Amino acid sequence: MTSNPTGNSSGNPSGTVHLPPTADTIYQHIRDLPIVSPHGHCDPAWFAENSAFRDPAELLIIPDHYVFRMLYSQGVPLQDLGIGVDPDIRDPRRIFQIFAQHWDRFLGTPSRQWLEHTFTHVFQISEPLTAQTADYYYDLIDAQLKTPQFRPRALFERFGLELLATTDAALDTLSHHQKIRASGWQGRIIPTFRPDTVLNPAAPDFAAHIRQLGELTGEDTASFASYLNALRQRRAFFKSEGATATDHAITTIHTCDVPDTEMATLLRQALQGPLSHADATRFYGRMLIEMAQMSVDDGLVMQIHGGSSRSTNAALYQRFGNDMGADIPIAVDWVNGLSALLNRVGNDPALSLILFTLDETTYSRELAPMAGHWPALRLGPPWWFHDSLNGIARYFDTVVETAGYWNLAGFNDDTRALLSIPARHDLWRRGAALHLGGQISRGLFGLSDALDIARLLARDLAVDAYRLKDL
Amino acid sequence: MTSNPTGNSSGNPSGTVHLPPTADTIYQHIRDLPIVSPHGHCDPAWFAENSAFRDPAELLIIPDHYVFRMLYSQGVPLQDLGIGVDPDIRDPRRIFQIFAQHWDRFLGTPSRQWLEHTFTHVFQISEPLTAQTADYYYDLIDAQLKTPQFRPRALFERFGLELLATTDAALDTLSHHQKIRASGWQGRIIPTFRPDTVLNPAAPDFAAHIRQLGELTGEDTASFASYLNALRQRRAFFKSEGATATDHAITTIHTCDVPDTEMATLLRQALQGPLSHADATRFYGRMLIEMAQMSVDDGLVMQIHGGSSRSTNAALYQRFGNDMGADIPIAVDWVNGLSALLNRVGNDPALSLILFTLDETTYSRELAPMAGHWPALRLGPPWWFHDSLNGIARYFDTVVETAGYWNLAGFNDDTRALLSIPARHDLWRRGAALHLGGQISRGLFGLSDALDIARLLARDLAVDAYRLKDL
Amino acid sequence: MTSNPTGNSSGNPSGTVHLPPTADTIYQHIRDLPIVSPHGHCDPAWFAENSAFRDPAELLIIPDHYVFRMLYSQGVPLQDLGIGVDPDIRDPRRIFQIFAQHWDRFLGTPSRQWLEHTFTHVFQISEPLTAQTADYYYDLIDAQLKTPQFRPRALFERFGLELLATTDAALDTLSHHQKIRASGWQGRIIPTFRPDTVLNPAAPDFAAHIRQLGELTGEDTASFASYLNALRQRRAFFKSEGATATDHAITTIHTCDVPDTEMATLLRQALQGPLSHADATRFYGRMLIEMAQMSVDDGLVMQIHGGSSRSTNAALYQRFGNDMGADIPIAVDWVNGLSALLNRVGNDPALSLILFTLDETTYSRELAPMAGHWPALRLGPPWWFHDSLNGIARYFDTVVETAGYWNLAGFNDDTRALLSIPARHDLWRRGAALHLGGQISRGLFGLSDALDIARLLARDLAVDAYRLKDL
Repeated sequence: MTSNPTGNSSGNPSGTVHLPPTADTIYQHIRDLPIVSPHGHCDPAWFAENSAFRDPAELLIIPDHYVFRMLYSQGVPLQDLGIGVDPDIRDPRRIFQIFAQHWDRFLGTPSRQWLEHTFTHVFQISEPLTAQTADYYYDLIDAQLKTPQFRPRALFERFGLELLATTDAALDTLSHHQKIRASGWQGRIIPTFRPDTVLNPAAPDFAAHIRQLGELTGEDTASFASYLNALRQRRAFFKSEGATATDHAITTIHTCDVPDTEMATLLRQALQGPLSHADATRFYGRMLIEMAQMSVDDGLVMQIHGGSSRSTNAALYQRFGNDMGADIPIAVDWVNGLSALLNRVGNDPALSLILFTLDETTYSRELAPMAGHWPALRLGPPWWFHDSLNGIARYFDTVVETAGYWNLAGFNDDTRALLSIPARHDLWRRGAALHLGGQISRGLFGLSDALDIARLLARDLAVDAYRLKDL
Repeated sequence: MTSNPTGNSSGNPSGTVHLPPTADTIYQHIRDLPIVSPHGHCDPAWFAENSAFRDPAELLIIPDHYVFRMLYSQGVPLQDLGIGVDPDIRDPRRIFQIFAQHWDRFLGTPSRQWLEHTFTHVFQISEPLTAQTADYYYDLIDAQLKTPQFRPRALFERFGLELLATTDAALDTLSHHQKIRASGWQGRIIPTFRPDTVLNPAAPDFAAHIRQLGELTGEDTASFASYLNALRQRRAFFKSEGATATDHAITTIHTCDVPDTEMATLLRQALQGPLSHADATRFYGRMLIEMAQMSVDDGLVMQIHGGSSRSTNAALYQRFGNDMGADIPIAVDWVNGLSALLNRVGNDPALSLILFTLDETTYSRELAPMAGHWPALRLGPPWWFHDSLNGIARYFDTVVETAGYWNLAGFNDDTRALLSIPARHDLWRRGAALHLGGQISRGLFGLSDALDIARLLARDLAVDAYRLKDL
Repeated sequence: MTSNPTGNSSGNPSGTVHLPPTADTIYQHIRDLPIVSPHGHCDPAWFAENSAFRDPAELLIIPDHYVFRMLYSQGVPLQDLGIGVDPDIRDPRRIFQIFAQHWDRFLGTPSRQWLEHTFTHVFQISEPLTAQTADYYYDLIDAQLKTPQFRPRALFERFGLELLATTDAALDTLSHHQKIRASGWQGRIIPTFRPDTVLNPAAPDFAAHIRQLGELTGEDTASFASYLNALRQRRAFFKSEGATATDHAITTIHTCDVPDTEMATLLRQALQGPLSHADATRFYGRMLIEMAQMSVDDGLVMQIHGGSSRSTNAALYQRFGNDMGADIPIAVDWVNGLSALLNRVGNDPALSLILFTLDETTYSRELAPMAGHWPALRLGPPWWFHDSLNGIARYFDTVVETAGYWNLAGFNDDTRALLSIPARHDLWRRGAALHLGGQISRGLFGLSDALDIARLLARDLAVDAYRLKDL
């Protein structure tokens, strides 16, 4: 159980990217900065309960669609990985064994880098993972999970987390967040307002959600004006519980001005039954503008994650639900899609509107020029599949020349895998250092500027973009 | 006639990419592996007849649209290159002279690299090609073509070809393939089933082809069920002649479920006259799903080459026909386009469905995430214009992090230029070695893993993806 | 006021990219070649009047939308930069101070590189620019602007400009150009025919422009045939004043054949009131073909700048007009969009048709294959946001393998910032040298070929593509 940071011929157990000297100098300047995690999907219940994680499979494999999608693509049935299986009848050791047998399938992927980093730095394992060492790994990890040092709050502290934002449905009671604060524990964990299901008439059970929104707020949500008030109430509630931001997942970016009278009619119709695709799109397009305007009013940062076609595998969706690895990016038109919204609020420098794309072609073609113009806009870091060494390199390559560094929003880990948080931030910091080292070697600026920018990228831009100024 | 592998100031006659030490170590590990060529457009008649190639122009220039399109773009009329000219009245020496005069126009292109490799390694010429050495080249090549060592079968053996797949129309009798096997020669040359003209109602002479399909199979192809049976018969025939795969060239990817009754009606209408664009698209969209289902049933690998707008130059098409260098890529939407097909067969790990794109933006946005999810999917190598040193680098850069290596289908040369086959595989192997050397230098994995992956990329993934297991 | 080319830790005041040895050898071969600037937006009045520039802010900041868009994106109001403010009540020193305070915002952008190059090489300032040195800079620059050596004609000569093309509206009298020539000054400044406003019925005041066109030419522009004659007259006039090219800015590329009778009808309607979007698109689509045909007839080079969505910020547009930094690129379909035009004139090698894109995905997918086929086509250099070190690298990476070097049009600076011209050409020459050095190191060709290509890229391709043969 000793660390072996030099790696060996079977792989690179430390999961770290090699850096040339100048990049390493920059990296050393930022490697130990506290971690700010302003967007992600960790479960607040972990920190409210502070219970031990059940077993290595439940911690590392079953909830991580990055991991199990690759195994599924290689012919492993999801149920063999315990997905859709009652936790009490799963065989976690067997699941870990299957994972280990396919470990080579992850060569070249960030999932492998993150997991190697986790094995090395969190669990202090120096042996390479193979089918033969799978049980050794399982036992080592399982034993550590049973210790107090591996409870969620202890990990939060050990990871140097300054702040962690979760993502919470608009109708959530935020009871876990309340419990965390009531406990007296000092870890700063804040909610994020995610209202997709009460804004998008095409979302499942939209009508039921609108009624529930009415019950929660005491507003008659069948009336458009009261529906807006109900949303304002929920935003205020989230803000009172610590939220600084909202988050919106939108497949096809579309915003449009729609008159109030038409909105009132569409709302009434949506409460009665499904709207046509065109009507649902119009309603949602106006509501996104409304959310942007509310952000201007209440100061909550607005995040838009655009262009992921969710759950494209119908059979898997029917059997296992969402987040089964079948969310696939599609091409996005940010320029026309956001035009109505930006022309309403984009000139306001007090607003912070952060965009995330899975269509990398939009970095240089649309997003960098837009972020380099609109005062409200900031460009989120490489997202999802592109949160990777090459993805980070492409991002800097195509974004910085047009948007500069100050129109970026720093880094998000965007993960539901708690243990991967340090690994992901470390990869970003190394990727940023590599980029900045390259800028120096090309003569674009000197080390002093590079160190300033490194600190911005590692922490300060996120603090600023997410209005976390009191950190 | 000696080789000069060090190159000189007038160019790089050896046509080979320089490799840094680690990449070279990897390359040496795979450089002499046998060549598996599972997709291409060589003429099976060459190997059935085993006649000498007529002359250098007919071998190297006239059939190679990579070469003559560049000369055409620079103002050389196609007829000056012997295209559309009766072979008996062509002046091949003059054609070769024109080509040599424009040799600098190919600087920086893979065509130049492949041809330099061919001149050096196949014809053992060490002089740089210039207008002055054109006759020298012509005479040297012409003399060698007249020797037995330059007959097609001898070249096949000399190139270390383990297998070569041709591409054959669905209505082909495969008589050349039969003749090759009947000859007792051991070279393994197999057909590929290419049914575009009997599936796509928008293809020229669709009705005639359907009738011919009926005659060949004894099925009444005016009936939808019998039409499907006729296709099954042809597939079985190709399989019996050694085929392991089908191939589909599709401009705009579109698949859709269409009821049998509607298909029967559309088929009847298509036999009477052209369908509307919308109807033809629906019919073809359903037939692609049908092909995929037949692949599940009969085990033939399914290849889809998507997004090439064929013969965009109407005047050239009318005068010279297809394949005149005017096929231009367009943007592709794989996610929505393949949705119906994948939701029918994509979860079956026994199916091998290989996708090829000319829209590189889909590597990281669509194809890698899809290949990293659907068990049936594999991602074909960089195709056509992107089968090049930079194209290969971009492919690895944008594909591997999300799809890994095991969801790739290895390499295809996809060529109708027999002599370029070793050059193309050599460039791929060098490109793969460069990529893997980079992965090692960044610390992603060690040499041992890199050598394993190199072998996969050079040969074994192609064997697996194309079901060539008995090789 | 001494130069300090080595840079220091606060930045890189010389604004130059570091080159490894081989690239530097190539760069030295071309660094002092005269500058050919065949496309740009300098004001011919500068050279006609040859007056001193008013002050540093008016020279460097107020007209440069690259610069002020970045400041605006960071929350600086445009009016604080003197935009939309009467020149007589502006405070140029205060504007320069604001700019200097935000100088770090430009780190990593080509604007910073160009300005550093200008400060170092044109104004001979070696101190880093900071809020503290802003006044020092202002005074130094202001003092120099008052000297004869900084008048426009002196700068033109000092910069080694062999030719400078301006861009001039179709209805322009070209009086400044006439005055320049009448002055006896030998600097070669030529106009470019930019007819968007008399071709596109969706352009503001289209009807008024058509009437003005009639008045200028004595043609009855309400008749389609006479309207075409009027355009021919204007082209001939521009040609007689030295023009060798036309220029077209088109948001969505669309060309189509429309019968003369329909065109006549549409023209009459357009003179009465706005056409529908569809009708305007058809009219414009035909007129672009007509322009191409006129280029075949009169020999003027045709430039198409495609895919910029102009003035996307309505509030800024209403207050300040065009060119306020809110022009954002959109995705472009060159293949279908240009099909009708290319099928009319594309096979003519005497025509020079130069395409510019802001959608870099079209480099390898569409433009390089098209330029590598159609005799008339040449590919313009990286444009606007992509005229940058990384943009140049991506251009060479994705274009050359398919199009070669001879189908490129060399470099354009495309600037309205006179002082940035040497900086932009220098950056291009360094970027080309970096690319060519890389080609040598990979073994693609030797130094001799690289030096030849360098000269083509730096000057000769532009001369050829723009028909400047008498230079």
